[in-house]
Amino acid sequence: MSANVLFGKPCAEVIYQALRESAFKGALYTIGFDAPQWKQYTYSLENSGKKCGIRTRHIYLRQDCAPNEMFETIDSVCRMHDAAGVLLEQPLPEVYQGAANRIVPQMDVDCLTSRSIAAMYKGASGIRPATPSAVIRLLDFYDISLSGKHVVVVGRGTVGKPLALMMLARNATVTVCHTKTADLPTVCKTADILVSACGVAGLINKDFVTEKTVVVDVGLSIVDGHSVGDVAPEVCEVCSAVSSVPGGVGPVTRAVVFENLLKISKAK
Amino acid sequence: MSANVLFGKPCAEVIYQALRESAFKGALYTIGFDAPQWKQYTYSLENSGKKCGIRTRHIYLRQDCAPNEMFETIDSVCRMHDAAGVLLEQPLPEVYQGAANRIVPQMDVDCLTSRSIAAMYKGASGIRPATPSAVIRLLDFYDISLSGKHVVVVGRGTVGKPLALMMLARNATVTVCHTKTADLPTVCKTADILVSACGVAGLINKDFVTEKTVVVDVGLSIVDGHSVGDVAPEVCEVCSAVSSVPGGVGPVTRAVVFENLLKISKAK
Repeated sequence: MSANVLFGKPCAEVIYQALRESAFKGALYTIGFDAPQWKQYTYSLENSGKKCGIRTRHIYLRQDCAPNEMFETIDSVCRMHDAAGVLLEQPLPEVYQGAANRIVPQMDVDCLTSRSIAAMYKGASGIRPATPSAVIRLLDFYDISLSGKHVVVVGRGTVGKPLALMMLARNATVTVCHTKTADLPTVCKTADILVSACGVAGLINKDFVTEKTVVVDVGLSIVDGHSVGDVAPEVCEVCSAVSSVPGGVGPVTRAVVFENLLKISKAK
Repeated sequence: MSANVLFGKPCAEVIYQALRESAFKGALYTIGFDAPQWKQYTYSLENSGKKCGIRTRHIYLRQDCAPNEMFETIDSVCRMHDAAGVLLEQPLPEVYQGAANRIVPQMDVDCLTSRSIAAMYKGASGIRPATPSAVIRLLDFYDISLSGKHVVVVGRGTVGKPLALMMLARNATVTVCHTKTADLPTVCKTADILVSACGVAGLINKDFVTEKTVVVDVGLSIVDGHSVGDVAPEVCEVCSAVSSVPGGVGPVTRAVVFENLLKISKAK
């Protein structure tokens, strides 16, 4: 028996539909490095913007740019007359620490400023980071309930950590695993919902799941020129449902970025 | 066989010793409600302060005080010439939302401001909340390693949530349980280290532990005039080690409050 596949496009389309109806004016600015993977992401974001009539502007910095150069770029983008929100590449090298808090909190589309992080931590109102939001939106779209479920998150980075907090707020029991976890397959097998966000191609194989597991794959690696997730194809033969890669969490994430843009603009 | 008991006093004494050597001048101000449990805590804190020669000043507000009255009290305390830090009662009713961020970040001894919370979330330098810090200090004091261990935290409140983040930063695999968790005993039994911080007297009984479990009891309820933890006495008959209640996490927490006071004062 083969698992149900969770596709992101129909879920994203619902978000785009609402965005088109809002007829939002104002642009999303992205700031990141002049490097293939980030540029690829910004191109996808630009296409996503077109689906809901929202403009995107991209600023690419040299990979060796001085911290102050980045900080000043963020400051000046926040003053642009058409800028409604700023998306900053994540994670950034340690030397750029402090960059996130240069974003004007009202323009923070990805929950990067201390104010937004604290609101998320406390479960207060406000926007949430796009990728973990997309994981939850995708599960909601497919009517997979979270309350009382055991969610195991693999990865404690810019996706795993906020996702853990957000899943707790949705009344899931949450386990966070990482490189130091002893016996990862056994822990993962206890999950009702297994979310992998560690970026290790094919890490999650059929020993990590049961026939009841719903698997969400947030990983994205490039192997031999192909986009590959954290979840090995063989997992489909065992588990209950698995998100598509590509075409799963990714399209929903991009839609959520624009939805966040609308939310913060309304809150101003 | 009976479990080893983890006592807080010798661990706290190490912290007090360092504080006495620092000969710190400057007072700790507490702000909370004029209610028995908080007053009791502030008295204990005052006694703890005496152990390291640090003064405490307590401000008790009426339980029906207007939010603005609390906010202005915080503002004026932060301006006191002898105030080195401010400890605000937690958790506060919803109506006082915003109180924590009235504390000047440099005077925040308990990681309540957005800036401190974001630093904790990111694993950046800065102080951490006293109670979860005390849990980790107690385990460190008894040479109980955390890296690679499975830590199950019962409770997702002002102790459970920060503790989860701090345990992740110490390379533990972390599970957070709460009132909506299905089959709590089974989840707790998977723990190497079980921390209960839910304030339900005697919730953790011998069905929740194995002979390997180290149990830390952060709960404190008053039952028939006695201080009672979350952990039932019968647990001692089964588990490997258990913290004393009272006399376990509590004394370490109070010592950490003063240690935090010294840390934020040095960072100014």
